[in-house]
Amino acid sequence: MPQTFLYSVLANNIARLIRSGVLKAGDRLPSVRMLCQEHGISMNTAKRVYQELEGQSLIESKPQSGFFVSWVQPKRLAVPETSAPSPISSSKEPDELIRKVYGNMGKKELTLFSIGVPADELLPLPGLNKEMMHAMRLLRGSGTRYEELQGNEKLRRGIAARSFSWGGSLQEDDLVTTAGGMNALSFCMMALGRPGDVIAVESPVYPGILQLAVSLGLKVLELPTHPDTGIVLAALKKVLPQIDLCLLVTNFGTPLGSCMPDEHKKEVVELLARHKIPLIEDDLYGDLYFGSQRPACCKAFDKHGTVLWCSSVSKTLAPGYRVGWVAPGLYKERIMKLKLVHAISSPTLTQEAVANFLKSGRYEHHLRKMRQVLQNNYHHYADTIAEYFPAGTRTSRPQGGLALWVELDKKIDTAELYEIALKHKISIAPGRMFTLQNQFQNCMRLCIGLPWSEDLRQKLKQLGRLAGMMR
Amino acid sequence: MPQTFLYSVLANNIARLIRSGVLKAGDRLPSVRMLCQEHGISMNTAKRVYQELEGQSLIESKPQSGFFVSWVQPKRLAVPETSAPSPISSSKEPDELIRKVYGNMGKKELTLFSIGVPADELLPLPGLNKEMMHAMRLLRGSGTRYEELQGNEKLRRGIAARSFSWGGSLQEDDLVTTAGGMNALSFCMMALGRPGDVIAVESPVYPGILQLAVSLGLKVLELPTHPDTGIVLAALKKVLPQIDLCLLVTNFGTPLGSCMPDEHKKEVVELLARHKIPLIEDDLYGDLYFGSQRPACCKAFDKHGTVLWCSSVSKTLAPGYRVGWVAPGLYKERIMKLKLVHAISSPTLTQEAVANFLKSGRYEHHLRKMRQVLQNNYHHYADTIAEYFPAGTRTSRPQGGLALWVELDKKIDTAELYEIALKHKISIAPGRMFTLQNQFQNCMRLCIGLPWSEDLRQKLKQLGRLAGMMR
Repeated sequence: MPQTFLYSVLANNIARLIRSGVLKAGDRLPSVRMLCQEHGISMNTAKRVYQELEGQSLIESKPQSGFFVSWVQPKRLAVPETSAPSPISSSKEPDELIRKVYGNMGKKELTLFSIGVPADELLPLPGLNKEMMHAMRLLRGSGTRYEELQGNEKLRRGIAARSFSWGGSLQEDDLVTTAGGMNALSFCMMALGRPGDVIAVESPVYPGILQLAVSLGLKVLELPTHPDTGIVLAALKKVLPQIDLCLLVTNFGTPLGSCMPDEHKKEVVELLARHKIPLIEDDLYGDLYFGSQRPACCKAFDKHGTVLWCSSVSKTLAPGYRVGWVAPGLYKERIMKLKLVHAISSPTLTQEAVANFLKSGRYEHHLRKMRQVLQNNYHHYADTIAEYFPAGTRTSRPQGGLALWVELDKKIDTAELYEIALKHKISIAPGRMFTLQNQFQNCMRLCIGLPWSEDLRQKLKQLGRLAGMMR
Repeated sequence: MPQTFLYSVLANNIARLIRSGVLKAGDRLPSVRMLCQEHGISMNTAKRVYQELEGQSLIESKPQSGFFVSWVQPKRLAVPETSAPSPISSSKEPDELIRKVYGNMGKKELTLFSIGVPADELLPLPGLNKEMMHAMRLLRGSGTRYEELQGNEKLRRGIAARSFSWGGSLQEDDLVTTAGGMNALSFCMMALGRPGDVIAVESPVYPGILQLAVSLGLKVLELPTHPDTGIVLAALKKVLPQIDLCLLVTNFGTPLGSCMPDEHKKEVVELLARHKIPLIEDDLYGDLYFGSQRPACCKAFDKHGTVLWCSSVSKTLAPGYRVGWVAPGLYKERIMKLKLVHAISSPTLTQEAVANFLKSGRYEHHLRKMRQVLQNNYHHYADTIAEYFPAGTRTSRPQGGLALWVELDKKIDTAELYEIALKHKISIAPGRMFTLQNQFQNCMRLCIGLPWSEDLRQKLKQLGRLAGMMR
């Protein structure tokens, strides 16, 4: 991850104005001298700003006349329709495909569009290593000890303090730490669901959620979901009498990257509470917003303590640290007991390291940079797909997170595309991984957490061509 | 933990001869000069050997005549009888007492006889910290990444190599790592048990095992267990038609510290296999033997892959690292799937650190010292209890591990003793924590993993007096 230089901040701001269409192709940019005056920067810095933008093919210099926007807003592809899963719950075992795709994790010869984790280049590794050393010094012997059951207090305090950013008002005592985000979801489902119970989720949804539910004997009811705004409220209302439990990835969930509008969040919380249905809210992507403001969480509207808000640092800092948490509301005792019984304690050292990283303010700093990179990546992906993918392709337009959902022509089976692409050292996540039903055969998820490069662009282009050959 | 000096090795050897009765009170020891010649050591070293033994009140010097054994073998208390639990399985929620007792964890003002973990003083903390730093350098970025699903390969290789010591012949591919030992047991029970199934366990048994089984909806059948030799085979045979699953802590399990003889282990494996009942073997104390040889594991006799051998470094190295594993035999696919679904991966850095610690040979070195300390502790505890506890007290005679089981006069309720002792800043684990039935009201478990000191002796003496006042 590069350091933040002044020139790169300015260049990014201008790039955003260009990509969002505020500055259009042909528009003249201020002269280098004017840029210096406006921003109080040196000539050298101003020149680097424009060099940077030229390097990204966003602007061009015309001899004797100055700098001009050269980037043409590519046609944005249409967004896929709201999904239409069957209204009957299922407990069919998820596809063997999942195992195959996840088996590619860590294979360096592949371009892993398939795995939903940020690349090392996006993570503050030196800073984290430093915090780990610091944690060992701070804790001395106790770094090897069992943690107190509820988890590292400093970490809980840090997470509680940040809840302000999404409309929450958590206290450290409201939180229980876990060994990662899936571990939090696992405890929540175990605490609230009994075999045979019905759990409502988005469709498409992260395969791990489907597998977890099925492994606990739950029946999964998939809800119609829009790529922009998440589940369709009317659909949820209809099934309320049938469901025992609801799990929603409210902000930028994989694979769609949808974000429920605040009013939807509020309504969902009220609806579910009225029917005494607990809501497990998985907010692990919430900090990765592309816009100017952190979206709210359902937990912010939780008056009765029936929302269990879960998150982790696996998508923003360090998947391998296994640091996650849950604010379980009314169900805290049950969650604590499950943690005691199944895990005894969370990993001690990594919790301390993350606690200090949060406290130092470096987490915020890191997130600012990471969000910018991800947003730029999204635009690069979207541009490249618009240019090279076959006609009829649609893509989601995530407002945050790590995933892009691509819907291809109905004739293209992405499970086949997976096999073909693999021969070209490209791995994708076929759409049918994200459902227990027969859906999304012509869809796939691409991870946008890989560092953008010409090489990556070529791989994406190649993927588009391979898809095109299947029509 | 002190370094191993030559004098301390020699002193310990002589101490063992004294405690085991080979050298008796009044026996004359070799002169300092002879000790030098026999062992090829310096005068100073020889003198320190005897100083050390004098400090432990095992020998005394008589002016003009030399050194003599002064320690009188204290009367050893009788061992409690084989337990006699009801042959009816139970799924009653374990006592609230457990929560209360574990709530004392980490309270520095208390003498925690109640918690079954080794004190920091017994652990190789500087060595572990060094390995963590080394792991961060070795893995660089990947220390923050998800591990491959099966777990760190080097670690699995190291564990497999050590299986030789207990009669096993594991390969690295036979193992799956987990976030600690309880996590391994939890995956095994989830893989093999369905709600309503009956699981057979020792009685008394580690409360976490009871809680885990109950939380998964299993019915627990407690088996009569002898403090020396573990479960009574005849009792197991009788209930074979009723049980679906068996979990045994075969070597030095808490609270009894019993060790199943090899022929029992062999027979249990054959019996269960014949009835197609999987055996979860919890071997987390196996490396902490007091004798000269590592006891075997049931897994060593497993011809059909129906034994799931579980262990961890939580009792020998670092509870807070959350490094455990299972060799699941036939059930590997199921365990891997549960791991993927509930945890995604184990903590990356601590696995790497433990892998290197094993590989360096320092683990063996550390264990040698730790076993010696624990064995000495056991003798100190046994001596002190024999001297100060009320008449009628019996104790187990563990051949390894961290626990001592104390049976008091029938009239003494250890749940009451717990409350009284707590007022004197002493915490114990009352016997009824270790069963789902009405048993062991007059028993308690003491952890022998605390560093022995005069202060600790006083605390134990005080506990004995408090017990005496309750008769």
